[in-house]
Amino acid sequence: MNAPIPAVTLRDTPDHLLQALAKRFDKQFSQAMVVREQHGRDESAFTHVPPPAGVVFAETTQDVQDAIRLAASAHVPVIPFGVGSSLEGHLLAVQGGISVDVSRMNRVLEINAEDLTVTVQPGVTRMAVNAAVKDHGLFFPIDPGADASIGGMAATRASGTNAVRYGTMRENVLALEVVTASGEVIRTGTRAKKSSAGYDLTRLMVGSEGTLGVITEVTLKLYPLPEAVSAAVCSFPSIEAAVQTTIQIIQMGVPIARCEFLDRKSVAMVNKYAQLTLREEPMLLMEFHGSPASVKEQAEVVQELASDMGGQAFEWATTPEARTKLWTARHNAYFAAIQSRPGCRAISTDTCVPISQLANCLLDSVKEADASGIPYFLLGHVGDGNFHFGYLINPDDPEERAKAEQLNEWLVARALRLGGTCTGEHGIGLHKMDFLRAEAGDEAVNMMRAIKQALDPHNIMNPGKIFTYQG
Amino acid sequence: MNAPIPAVTLRDTPDHLLQALAKRFDKQFSQAMVVREQHGRDESAFTHVPPPAGVVFAETTQDVQDAIRLAASAHVPVIPFGVGSSLEGHLLAVQGGISVDVSRMNRVLEINAEDLTVTVQPGVTRMAVNAAVKDHGLFFPIDPGADASIGGMAATRASGTNAVRYGTMRENVLALEVVTASGEVIRTGTRAKKSSAGYDLTRLMVGSEGTLGVITEVTLKLYPLPEAVSAAVCSFPSIEAAVQTTIQIIQMGVPIARCEFLDRKSVAMVNKYAQLTLREEPMLLMEFHGSPASVKEQAEVVQELASDMGGQAFEWATTPEARTKLWTARHNAYFAAIQSRPGCRAISTDTCVPISQLANCLLDSVKEADASGIPYFLLGHVGDGNFHFGYLINPDDPEERAKAEQLNEWLVARALRLGGTCTGEHGIGLHKMDFLRAEAGDEAVNMMRAIKQALDPHNIMNPGKIFTYQG
Repeated sequence: MNAPIPAVTLRDTPDHLLQALAKRFDKQFSQAMVVREQHGRDESAFTHVPPPAGVVFAETTQDVQDAIRLAASAHVPVIPFGVGSSLEGHLLAVQGGISVDVSRMNRVLEINAEDLTVTVQPGVTRMAVNAAVKDHGLFFPIDPGADASIGGMAATRASGTNAVRYGTMRENVLALEVVTASGEVIRTGTRAKKSSAGYDLTRLMVGSEGTLGVITEVTLKLYPLPEAVSAAVCSFPSIEAAVQTTIQIIQMGVPIARCEFLDRKSVAMVNKYAQLTLREEPMLLMEFHGSPASVKEQAEVVQELASDMGGQAFEWATTPEARTKLWTARHNAYFAAIQSRPGCRAISTDTCVPISQLANCLLDSVKEADASGIPYFLLGHVGDGNFHFGYLINPDDPEERAKAEQLNEWLVARALRLGGTCTGEHGIGLHKMDFLRAEAGDEAVNMMRAIKQALDPHNIMNPGKIFTYQG
Repeated sequence: MNAPIPAVTLRDTPDHLLQALAKRFDKQFSQAMVVREQHGRDESAFTHVPPPAGVVFAETTQDVQDAIRLAASAHVPVIPFGVGSSLEGHLLAVQGGISVDVSRMNRVLEINAEDLTVTVQPGVTRMAVNAAVKDHGLFFPIDPGADASIGGMAATRASGTNAVRYGTMRENVLALEVVTASGEVIRTGTRAKKSSAGYDLTRLMVGSEGTLGVITEVTLKLYPLPEAVSAAVCSFPSIEAAVQTTIQIIQMGVPIARCEFLDRKSVAMVNKYAQLTLREEPMLLMEFHGSPASVKEQAEVVQELASDMGGQAFEWATTPEARTKLWTARHNAYFAAIQSRPGCRAISTDTCVPISQLANCLLDSVKEADASGIPYFLLGHVGDGNFHFGYLINPDDPEERAKAEQLNEWLVARALRLGGTCTGEHGIGLHKMDFLRAEAGDEAVNMMRAIKQALDPHNIMNPGKIFTYQG
């Protein structure tokens, strides 16, 4: 929101391209306005962009290749689409073009239980991965709020509540198949756990937000379902007490699996949305994975740390059902918040700072948010130093929008001063291009542009995202 | 060795450039033959390449910038040099040019103990990092055999014995400062634990083998020294029994910190070199990190698995001194092997396969090596599916060299068929360019070339490594 959508000319999608797509894809291609509109928006607060000119429902890698080749021949943009849960405007057709929807590419291709890997098509969602591997005693830990597609999660370098222990998509994608801007298929990485074989194209594609190609296959790391799991909530007298407890947990090297913070407002919203009765105070929601003895030991250490900071006695979620209810509530916090103010849109911040700076960064920004009068909630993957303010604005009120933008700008500037990043897991998209320049510097952004130009000389792959670039 | 060094014209280093370097760098620049020769070789089996025309001993980022700018103005190659421990010919001036030695950039710049990070100059070695952070109760786990420089380790995406638990340089480099081929300074990443801020330039640089720039600063992740550590050796009746035990340890999710395999010959060499009395049979050398209870629990599980496979009772290294002796012996295995055949050079393989394929891959290659008559040793980071045959050849005997090349080709072909990689941690360098093409495919290698061309249009950064490219 800080950066207005760059003023670029909407590129024309010529009729002959639309006809060629219709001919090639038949019922897999739609120009119906309702379909186009559904593919021209996401969960971001950007709403006033014309939709793509048409939508290809790809079912195979060959479909993706053909769609890209046809679009490339006319220099028309291609925007990959998974489930539409981006928070940063990734899916908006800011320069026109066509949407390539991969949600029908939803097959789990190969489970290698012995190697702890799974290979899926990009439209498989994170929950579908887990459903497929559960019977093998395995799980996939990355869990953004939405039941996002694996392709979209790879493209935005997503993470979630388990990242403190298991890492993000950066660490958990082993290999990819990608269709490039020229319609070639490349494979990056292998199923081997590590490699020094040339440039790390896998990591280059992970987080490139669809600007370098369309991901058509993803090989993920899996983990054995822990022998024992226990979840607990603990309430604190202040935000600071909860955050300081988190800092100590991390610095002591406790292998905590999840360490989530919810402010009082978030707890209240979640209570209402999910009919829970959590104490409406700043809260840590934690989970421990390991052997029974190890889980017990971790919990004891953490309880002692929490108690020293004034934390209430832990409330345990001992059954799988109780745990699921708790974590489902956490994952629905965003939607709970949206529903708390009918008609609102949330502007979500995503700063991430070195853990020693977490209290500093967070508390000053809470003061600013309180002073603004904008309704907001605050929750975070605090074990990683990553947190989200959600400013609940009336999208039609320019003043509220401006205030929220100002809050976010202050917050990002603070996070950068403290050695952090403007985005821990949502990506740059349309929203944070100026922040990226402030964070990485013009030289590094120019290096990104040079790579983009080398791999997509006509700038057809999701143009107008991450950085301005005219192609 | 499979690929002869590509026949490229040695580029001329003009006298005016050498004079300009001498003027700018004074005593930090040397054209003495002994210095040039020292910088024109590494631990690889390549020996017949002329040395660089001169060596700049950089002491600051500005020095690196000035050296690159001067070289760039004459389109002369620049080869970054750390401690010279590459196994793949990375340091050889195959197209002429100058060496930029960063070993004097050896300051630990900032220890952020609370955040578990450290920022160092590229010439700091892994042991120096550990010496600097030890008093903070922290350690840095990545440990290739040599006491390599952090810059070189980042450039080759190195790993070592702890990678099975702590990951490789891919996972443990948070941020970099890099001088590009045009002499600009860029910063990639931040000290935040995770980020979705644009293209992952950090991961692009990690493993790029000096072909995209010179690394001048590295921010690393650190880990709390474990409360308890115990190491154990266990001998097995066969290679297969040791490998099957490893596979089960990994598949059960035991968080083992180190799981190293040594074949009978390696154990014998290590015994002789380090005056140890290890049982001369296939052996696993393991280490467990955690709380005392967790270490005990891990060891019990592993002992039971080993015992089922015919493993002997564990011999424990209970004191820190005994552990250090054991691991020093392991790290010196390569040098022990070299000394076992005076005058020999080792051709080291580096395949890495999905763990389920480890026994398959390894046992067939052992048969081939036995049949060849070439002396060899075998050791591996088997917990990662990564292992090294070291073929000990007389470098002046073309027949031995050809046999070793053939063995390596068979091994790599097998690893690729099994879903693995030709290099787990040494890099491509000069040695494995054809293997990279076989592994990644021409399309992916062409993408690497396109990136190289975009970031280094005159092909001055360590040219002739990873892939052929004429600039």
